[in-house]
Amino acid sequence: MRSDLLAPNAFLNPLIVEDAVRRALTEDLGRAGDITSAATIPEGKNATAKLAARKPGVLAGLACAAEAFAQLDPSIEFRAKKRDGDTLKAGDVAAEIAGNARAILSAERTALNFATHLSGVATLTAAFVAKVKRTTAKIVCTRKTIPGLRALEKYAVRCGGGMNHRFGLDDAILITDNHIAVAGGVGAALKAARASAGHLVKVEIEVENLDELAEVLNAGGADVALLDNMDTATLKRAVEIASGKLALEASGGVNLDTVAAIAETGVDMISVGALTHSAPALDLGLDVDI
Amino acid sequence: MRSDLLAPNAFLNPLIVEDAVRRALTEDLGRAGDITSAATIPEGKNATAKLAARKPGVLAGLACAAEAFAQLDPSIEFRAKKRDGDTLKAGDVAAEIAGNARAILSAERTALNFATHLSGVATLTAAFVAKVKRTTAKIVCTRKTIPGLRALEKYAVRCGGGMNHRFGLDDAILITDNHIAVAGGVGAALKAARASAGHLVKVEIEVENLDELAEVLNAGGADVALLDNMDTATLKRAVEIASGKLALEASGGVNLDTVAAIAETGVDMISVGALTHSAPALDLGLDVDI
Amino acid sequence: MRSDLLAPNAFLNPLIVEDAVRRALTEDLGRAGDITSAATIPEGKNATAKLAARKPGVLAGLACAAEAFAQLDPSIEFRAKKRDGDTLKAGDVAAEIAGNARAILSAERTALNFATHLSGVATLTAAFVAKVKRTTAKIVCTRKTIPGLRALEKYAVRCGGGMNHRFGLDDAILITDNHIAVAGGVGAALKAARASAGHLVKVEIEVENLDELAEVLNAGGADVALLDNMDTATLKRAVEIASGKLALEASGGVNLDTVAAIAETGVDMISVGALTHSAPALDLGLDVDI
Amino acid sequence: MRSDLLAPNAFLNPLIVEDAVRRALTEDLGRAGDITSAATIPEGKNATAKLAARKPGVLAGLACAAEAFAQLDPSIEFRAKKRDGDTLKAGDVAAEIAGNARAILSAERTALNFATHLSGVATLTAAFVAKVKRTTAKIVCTRKTIPGLRALEKYAVRCGGGMNHRFGLDDAILITDNHIAVAGGVGAALKAARASAGHLVKVEIEVENLDELAEVLNAGGADVALLDNMDTATLKRAVEIASGKLALEASGGVNLDTVAAIAETGVDMISVGALTHSAPALDLGLDVDI
Amino acid sequence: MRSDLLAPNAFLNPLIVEDAVRRALTEDLGRAGDITSAATIPEGKNATAKLAARKPGVLAGLACAAEAFAQLDPSIEFRAKKRDGDTLKAGDVAAEIAGNARAILSAERTALNFATHLSGVATLTAAFVAKVKRTTAKIVCTRKTIPGLRALEKYAVRCGGGMNHRFGLDDAILITDNHIAVAGGVGAALKAARASAGHLVKVEIEVENLDELAEVLNAGGADVALLDNMDTATLKRAVEIASGKLALEASGGVNLDTVAAIAETGVDMISVGALTHSAPALDLGLDVDI
Amino acid sequence: MRSDLLAPNAFLNPLIVEDAVRRALTEDLGRAGDITSAATIPEGKNATAKLAARKPGVLAGLACAAEAFAQLDPSIEFRAKKRDGDTLKAGDVAAEIAGNARAILSAERTALNFATHLSGVATLTAAFVAKVKRTTAKIVCTRKTIPGLRALEKYAVRCGGGMNHRFGLDDAILITDNHIAVAGGVGAALKAARASAGHLVKVEIEVENLDELAEVLNAGGADVALLDNMDTATLKRAVEIASGKLALEASGGVNLDTVAAIAETGVDMISVGALTHSAPALDLGLDVDI
Repeated sequence: MRSDLLAPNAFLNPLIVEDAVRRALTEDLGRAGDITSAATIPEGKNATAKLAARKPGVLAGLACAAEAFAQLDPSIEFRAKKRDGDTLKAGDVAAEIAGNARAILSAERTALNFATHLSGVATLTAAFVAKVKRTTAKIVCTRKTIPGLRALEKYAVRCGGGMNHRFGLDDAILITDNHIAVAGGVGAALKAARASAGHLVKVEIEVENLDELAEVLNAGGADVALLDNMDTATLKRAVEIASGKLALEASGGVNLDTVAAIAETGVDMISVGALTHSAPALDLGLDVDI
Repeated sequence: MRSDLLAPNAFLNPLIVEDAVRRALTEDLGRAGDITSAATIPEGKNATAKLAARKPGVLAGLACAAEAFAQLDPSIEFRAKKRDGDTLKAGDVAAEIAGNARAILSAERTALNFATHLSGVATLTAAFVAKVKRTTAKIVCTRKTIPGLRALEKYAVRCGGGMNHRFGLDDAILITDNHIAVAGGVGAALKAARASAGHLVKVEIEVENLDELAEVLNAGGADVALLDNMDTATLKRAVEIASGKLALEASGGVNLDTVAAIAETGVDMISVGALTHSAPALDLGLDVDI
Repeated sequence: MRSDLLAPNAFLNPLIVEDAVRRALTEDLGRAGDITSAATIPEGKNATAKLAARKPGVLAGLACAAEAFAQLDPSIEFRAKKRDGDTLKAGDVAAEIAGNARAILSAERTALNFATHLSGVATLTAAFVAKVKRTTAKIVCTRKTIPGLRALEKYAVRCGGGMNHRFGLDDAILITDNHIAVAGGVGAALKAARASAGHLVKVEIEVENLDELAEVLNAGGADVALLDNMDTATLKRAVEIASGKLALEASGGVNLDTVAAIAETGVDMISVGALTHSAPALDLGLDVDI
Repeated sequence: MRSDLLAPNAFLNPLIVEDAVRRALTEDLGRAGDITSAATIPEGKNATAKLAARKPGVLAGLACAAEAFAQLDPSIEFRAKKRDGDTLKAGDVAAEIAGNARAILSAERTALNFATHLSGVATLTAAFVAKVKRTTAKIVCTRKTIPGLRALEKYAVRCGGGMNHRFGLDDAILITDNHIAVAGGVGAALKAARASAGHLVKVEIEVENLDELAEVLNAGGADVALLDNMDTATLKRAVEIASGKLALEASGGVNLDTVAAIAETGVDMISVGALTHSAPALDLGLDVDI
Repeated sequence: MRSDLLAPNAFLNPLIVEDAVRRALTEDLGRAGDITSAATIPEGKNATAKLAARKPGVLAGLACAAEAFAQLDPSIEFRAKKRDGDTLKAGDVAAEIAGNARAILSAERTALNFATHLSGVATLTAAFVAKVKRTTAKIVCTRKTIPGLRALEKYAVRCGGGMNHRFGLDDAILITDNHIAVAGGVGAALKAARASAGHLVKVEIEVENLDELAEVLNAGGADVALLDNMDTATLKRAVEIASGKLALEASGGVNLDTVAAIAETGVDMISVGALTHSAPALDLGLDVDI
Repeated sequence: MRSDLLAPNAFLNPLIVEDAVRRALTEDLGRAGDITSAATIPEGKNATAKLAARKPGVLAGLACAAEAFAQLDPSIEFRAKKRDGDTLKAGDVAAEIAGNARAILSAERTALNFATHLSGVATLTAAFVAKVKRTTAKIVCTRKTIPGLRALEKYAVRCGGGMNHRFGLDDAILITDNHIAVAGGVGAALKAARASAGHLVKVEIEVENLDELAEVLNAGGADVALLDNMDTATLKRAVEIASGKLALEASGGVNLDTVAAIAETGVDMISVGALTHSAPALDLGLDVDI
């Protein structure tokens, strides 16, 4: 895997790229492989190709695209012209590819499927980030990811200027209303969480209203409060109440029309499930010259 | 895997469900598992839950959701109230779940990530299908799928009333402009394809204009012609020219605004990449009662 | 994987080679590896070897053999002298290998097990193909393959001059007597199949006698009829009845003594399960020179 | 996996059955599964079936067949009427199967591919064993197995009355001419092997002629001598020379015509590569009653 | 996997148990399985067994032991008499097992290898925890774990009363001297870390002396300081300097003789690599009654 | 995998190294990878490092360490200064590493976890071997290994000068008291074992006292007797009784204080479970120079 194709400060286990690409190639090539190219392209034929943007957006997934070509033919050259996180105009070339024509055509769709999906995530994230750029609020992703692509999508969120929430159920505690109800209230839940959590585990707790926020502040032990579905007036009050004693995350009802106003309330983070569960693909194509 | 939860005429290898769900649970549970529930929910506690639609749409992915709960605790009851392919109104309950509270909460996000994504694909497909219902045109998917979910997404397209194009590079021949150029023209490419293809492999060929379509008809050997980015007038002419000698697929520039007019040209299939690469998630939630 | 070692028009997902070879090496090397070579061959010792035919036949599996050596030591040179699909005389050298002696001896049996089995399939196929060369009939394989080697055996059939039937249950429809019985007759079964099948899926249907064939022709919707266990007189009548309206496959009772007469009936395909389920290995050996 | 379906004294890691069957089902069901049954068989339909011998032989692989049905639908009943190792007459029923019709038809080919191949190995083994039954010679298999099926084929050899040679390169030492040449002669090779081998590892050495056999006896340290391609007169002399001081294995030129005479020379083992690399499938079929 | 056999507040992804046990059984059973039991124990024979402590200690790994038996024969009964985290006296019975004798004997070693190793980790942890019980210091593990057993060993540490440090490189930031040097000092490193880290990621930083600790406090942004190899006098000073503004972890030179004094300095955590990299197995045995 | 980094006469399937290292990296890097290095080290920065001994011992695991660096960045140079099996003094450099700084830091812990654990096994083995060097007794390992590391630990035992017992349940027969009881006595058990075992499988049998040893000798068919928990006087008598007719293995109550006396009794092998289940890690570290 070419780590040099990842965004400079990527938070991504690079071994995941190899595995995800192999699985994707396997589901596309099936048993018989690319039978169209085998039937119509001479085996020694070479080609060049350009990975180009058809629409403007933010690039993510270049390492996956390169890996798709490399797994089918390690001698294919993949020259990056852009990096993950770069903004693309329509027509911009992200990479030039040269080598065996059959292998390039066989890997084309897999390479594009990664690049268009991950760039789609990055592009949507960037749109949200742009809306809040005059505030200090961070746009963060959620665990509402496409099954099997958690780490890659969270990487794409960073390419778009967003930040990451939990990567899974195991790296931070997030106490929701169900946990509170069973544990016997906010205080009891926080106490139980703090007692169980290791010293490098943060604790976030969901609150439905300002009374619960006050309860959380009173109980102590929380690093972050998740303000669920509050209107902007309530969010502003929450910021005043918290007064920096814990970080505040706004969640629910967030879209490109509402996010700026939410950010202006002073919350620290705004989480947006749509970044990963509903991002349309960015239109990228491969212009092949045989 | 509960095959009874698949749509009645599902085209899906059921073993894929088990594998996809295990991978998704693994990426969510990581090393330490659901540390919030471990810290706050007593281990023997039971709960019930309802998988419910927050927005209207078409259901897909119930077997995946059930499998997520089953893999964490086989004793969890999962009673389907709807089937894949059913239309849901906001508020409709798709399934009722009962059993160990920790396991239900730990599997919740994985179950929802499958169901919301696949139902999103089915719902978008159904929207396209609805637009063409007065015609004989079929809405078909493409190979532009989310990496790792090819078979499940193609299954979801069927749940939404669509039909499937190739599942991969290996189950049908699709000759595009690059293949034609290298093979030495439409006739040569079709001849090479027919010679190579087994007797149960269909051959489709992309044409850019009506002259090429005529060339294809003249050469013989093609089962389907892919009409790439033609306007509706041209599509109509193509239907007249082909006059049933081969099937016609329209592709390019298809959206919910244009699809009806395209269908009315008389083409047999309309392929829509967006069904799988850009379907927004359907909003489903789990209402847990502990 | 060295794609250049595959037959020029191979229908094979090349990623399958790597995986199959790794599994085979793993089952041969077990936990302790090649303990005989470790005990008796100095670690830096080099050797050369020739992969040679002991008996005449048709070569298949060279890429697998090369991969076995490469996985144990990427610096081993593997120079092909023949290609898959070539006819070998006894004594012909298919490849020369040079490099670390321990690695060559450790990979020897795995390399040979692939090459002798796949060449056995290719050789048996070629024998059938030779018998029908004066006709237009194609020799085709079946799904009666050795578990785990489906794609590789189907590739070997092509190396021997045969063609492929379905690769699996999912890439074409083949309606047999059980399906007909349940569906409510030939017409109903074909209608159901056509309604379900995508536009790139062919439909074949098994017929037991000429009445059923007539019924199939009458119903329409079938691309191929499978003529099950008919004598040559009946096959001839079937060819007349079908008169080119659908392709005809003869099956059952096919062996090297009967195949020519079957081909001369005018059927399009003759399927032979024995190609893959009962092909004796071709005797190839490795002559090592240390 | 149903261990009760293995031969009573099976030497087989039962976990291998599950893995091998899953891989075989996966390669047959592909992405879309059994599309013919999905299109033509109602989902709730039940069926019964009989796994029956079309030709006489020795049964092996019943656990694999049962596992194929169970993996697709755990509620399918699989009632064994015979056990692995049993002799079957044409028409004998080995097992009765009852349950969901789609699942039975979908698993049919995979179940049969295991049972016909492994029974083929067992049947060929039994034929060799029958030829030597008046002697004390054992028929043993080799490492010339179909890639991926090593353990299952060696199990089938036992079902046919044969015995196993090494399972891999790691469980016994077998010194061949190459090892001898590099090590500096028979004595040096045996000494090196004995020094390296653990106390539970046996040492076999290949000899080309009687002088080498004498050398082996003189050197000590070998448990078994492999008599390579010797005529029966020479084999008899070898038996006299060895006079029980080490076990003798005859190898090379063994077939059903020659094996009896070889056995009568008094050698202890006769190894036959064809048992596993060239056994024709035993004709078994599934009679389905829907 | 039987989640009910895990410690009540286990931080462990239960899916890891199944995978780890399958791999361990596979490496023990190899190709031919338990050939001794196959040769000497009748297949239908039943047995009972007791998993008993030969030496006193703390139990961990009961779910793994149960899983080993279950994977070989799901009908084996496994009745827990103790739970993970319980203290065992020599002779205490942790579980009673009943079922097929061959399966019990075949799984015995794998079950014991998990239970003895994990109980060894728990027992050593408990010894450290006992030494500090009069202080508020927590005993925590490190990433110095046996390859492949990270999650299970960290679970065992909790069974012994310890707490967990990072589970991997990805769930918390730990800045060491190398990172500080390259980043351009403590302040720059902390700033870079805080800017990159998500809002649920804690930051720990290693300090070599009190000046560096002051620098960390001054810079802000750290949640924990790792005091590397300081004597107890220095640790005490560190506690005073930090005065609760960040948590303090002592590391280096920790053993059962030194840990109490270190704990008494007032540090919050004491990390001990030996808990996982050097814990001797706890002597547990299986008393089989056939 | 760099086979040149294995001990010269290693008994190890080299493919196991790649798989074990990948799993270990995966569990350390998780989803987001090494977030500390990503945040603080510039992506192009290079570094050099020395793998050095902090305490004296015997080296094992160099190939695993090299593989960890190579999997993260194949361009990292790894120059071995020592070989597995070499004795290290404190301060000795085993290898020098140079390349991308992030990759070196990300692989550091995984590389060390293999090297410290395997060197720990080798070092403990060497200590036992040193105690018996004036005798002919061999120190052998057991199947009491850390789950998942069987082959690597057995390799490390050889690096320390020990020899290997069985690698699994499948490569030799070891009859214990339970087998004897069920089989109907020593003679019956041995007879059953000999009848079942292939000609390359050795048979060992456990005896509790000298009467049983006599019984074994009388029955014949055993290659080795395992003398369980006998005092040295009894062991001496056993050696006299056996008088070279079978090999003798002493087991039970073996530690560094008792092993010399046991060896002096004349037994052939002394098996020590602690070599693999309780070896403390050897303290090795990585001195990084950025």
